[in-house]
Amino acid sequence: MRDVAIIGVGLTKIDLHFDKSIREIFKEAVSKALDDAFNPVIESAYIGNMAADEFNNQKNISSLLIDFSGLNNIPATRIETGESSGGSALIAGFNDVASGLHDFVLVGGVEKMSEVVSTEAESIISLGMFHEYETIQGLSPEGAAALIMRLYMHKYNVKDEDIALLAQQDHKNAVSNPYAQLRFEVTLESILKARSIADPITLMHCAPIGDGAAALILCPMEEAKKITDTPIQIAGIGQASDALGLTQRDDLLDFKSIRLAAEKAYKMAKIKPEDVQVAEIFDSYTIYGLLALEELGFAQRGEAAAMLKNGFFSKNGVKPVNISGGLKARGHPIGATGVYQTAEIALTLRGDAQLKIDSTPEVGLAQTLSGAGVNSTVQILRRV
Amino acid sequence: MRDVAIIGVGLTKIDLHFDKSIREIFKEAVSKALDDAFNPVIESAYIGNMAADEFNNQKNISSLLIDFSGLNNIPATRIETGESSGGSALIAGFNDVASGLHDFVLVGGVEKMSEVVSTEAESIISLGMFHEYETIQGLSPEGAAALIMRLYMHKYNVKDEDIALLAQQDHKNAVSNPYAQLRFEVTLESILKARSIADPITLMHCAPIGDGAAALILCPMEEAKKITDTPIQIAGIGQASDALGLTQRDDLLDFKSIRLAAEKAYKMAKIKPEDVQVAEIFDSYTIYGLLALEELGFAQRGEAAAMLKNGFFSKNGVKPVNISGGLKARGHPIGATGVYQTAEIALTLRGDAQLKIDSTPEVGLAQTLSGAGVNSTVQILRRV
Repeated sequence: MRDVAIIGVGLTKIDLHFDKSIREIFKEAVSKALDDAFNPVIESAYIGNMAADEFNNQKNISSLLIDFSGLNNIPATRIETGESSGGSALIAGFNDVASGLHDFVLVGGVEKMSEVVSTEAESIISLGMFHEYETIQGLSPEGAAALIMRLYMHKYNVKDEDIALLAQQDHKNAVSNPYAQLRFEVTLESILKARSIADPITLMHCAPIGDGAAALILCPMEEAKKITDTPIQIAGIGQASDALGLTQRDDLLDFKSIRLAAEKAYKMAKIKPEDVQVAEIFDSYTIYGLLALEELGFAQRGEAAAMLKNGFFSKNGVKPVNISGGLKARGHPIGATGVYQTAEIALTLRGDAQLKIDSTPEVGLAQTLSGAGVNSTVQILRRV
Repeated sequence: MRDVAIIGVGLTKIDLHFDKSIREIFKEAVSKALDDAFNPVIESAYIGNMAADEFNNQKNISSLLIDFSGLNNIPATRIETGESSGGSALIAGFNDVASGLHDFVLVGGVEKMSEVVSTEAESIISLGMFHEYETIQGLSPEGAAALIMRLYMHKYNVKDEDIALLAQQDHKNAVSNPYAQLRFEVTLESILKARSIADPITLMHCAPIGDGAAALILCPMEEAKKITDTPIQIAGIGQASDALGLTQRDDLLDFKSIRLAAEKAYKMAKIKPEDVQVAEIFDSYTIYGLLALEELGFAQRGEAAAMLKNGFFSKNGVKPVNISGGLKARGHPIGATGVYQTAEIALTLRGDAQLKIDSTPEVGLAQTLSGAGVNSTVQILRRV
């Protein structure tokens, strides 16, 4: 297996881009990533996208996006694993370089959600739930998250205001991320008193709807060293799935897919959870963020909220988490999110001005998730 | 790069399976493929599917399908490149083994189209066309194919009855394929006199709507040799894309993506078009089949129909094509088709009773296509 490096990163500001098409925001991310990588000849592309079929009436979108971006005729494949699509696209791109089939590969992620009204967006996102048994009975993504949050609060004696700390920290961090959608701080009170979505989840426990595209350029490490002084190695990757339906699970608080994906990634990178110095975790709902911190091995069961409270995961804490602002405040353009997260970790490890932290981390981790603990990817990056 | 082999094949009979869910037909294909491969422990899965989002109201379907098939918790990724999704899934699966990330990988394809009425199916398939410029103006997949067929007839002085020969041959071949949807012969007259869909295309120039699932088990060649006496090597693969919109092309008869994908696959397999002894080509419309024969290098421009006429591509001809029955008569459960084609070539090379031919070919080729020449994959298999 060839060592694989990230040599280019391109991000667009996440927002409701009513004035731009999905092709335009994708092209912007690709152009930036190509510039950042000193414009190599791209041979192949993998694009994470959850729902252009419905948001944009467009399937087979990878060919369209790649052609519009000027990368005419290269192989282009769309990857869809719900909200974790960006992470799965990265793994497919990694394999494409690691196998030796291609040298310079683009991994992109894009979602353009603002083409539809928010109630329709909700229906589209619900297509990722188990239709035959659950969605058809009225279970929504928020409803599932609320069930799980209520159970977590009960089992571990944790309050909603403790879980809300993650949203507050996300918003604080997003202020200094130029690509983030919601760049303002919020009080704990405003989170708790926001409109109820599915009790105990308020609007401020949920990631917003937004448009965004992110792109990465991968190549063999050997080539990367000739091109840049700051190649970032993809040192470990892992993916795992779980039953789509909540009714098929033994324990709703067991987000096994995250744990299994992480185990694979740690093993491949030959590190332990405590070696991770900075992380981007998937908090589409705050409760999923807490469960991720625990399944990744950063916190004991039921302890994540307490560690958030004492600043362990804050920007200048022991293990900074979501310095981008996380899904809550950086934003969550669904199929793009996993690529944003990986790109942000790469920028932090490079010491890039926009996502820099005081310590100079060498090892970072990004984690994606679909649905209520369904598909998960974990990618570990290392500055070499 | 590790050599990759196919050690297991599982196919379901293509039909309108009103009594089965998408999960059930997928599981059937997986079970057969696992049995065929002597039940190895599968580590990862890639699933080609174009439109479960709309046909079955289900995204993130790879986790659902894999879990229901008993392959709990393994990484499972859905691949979508329109009608060529099955071919692209094979490439992702190939890379997963070739890189060394996983040893035993499932490549599946599935489409369950019979959940909706045929007019709705038509709308769903049209999502693969260029929405912003063309679909919205009323161009349909059949309309695009009709434009191209008319142009081909004019440019090369070929008659519709010559192009219809491919449909007739497909139907003849399908009779002996137990998995085929339309197992009956048709006269040339019945093709020409069938209901007009988009002149000069009649119903009998088009692939039918159907449900089906196909699965392949891949592993390193080294392992394959320990498991089976008939490992089939994936000797070459290639993929290429083109502009999604017909309005963006220089020449509507130039199906460049097939040619470029084939060039890559031939180069990788170190063979020439004339070395291919048996092939499955993508004739969603008969005209696309003829163009494929030419772009693959099996016929000169404008000559494919004449070669069909003289039996060059018939079951006992020089280079048998679509002995499965092709898309026209084997059927075309969209996201599964590329996996069916690859599986069929593997069975023929293995000398399997169900798709055997009199000669004993060592090298076969399968080709997929999305839309009117958009994304294409070419996979070359070799008996070792």
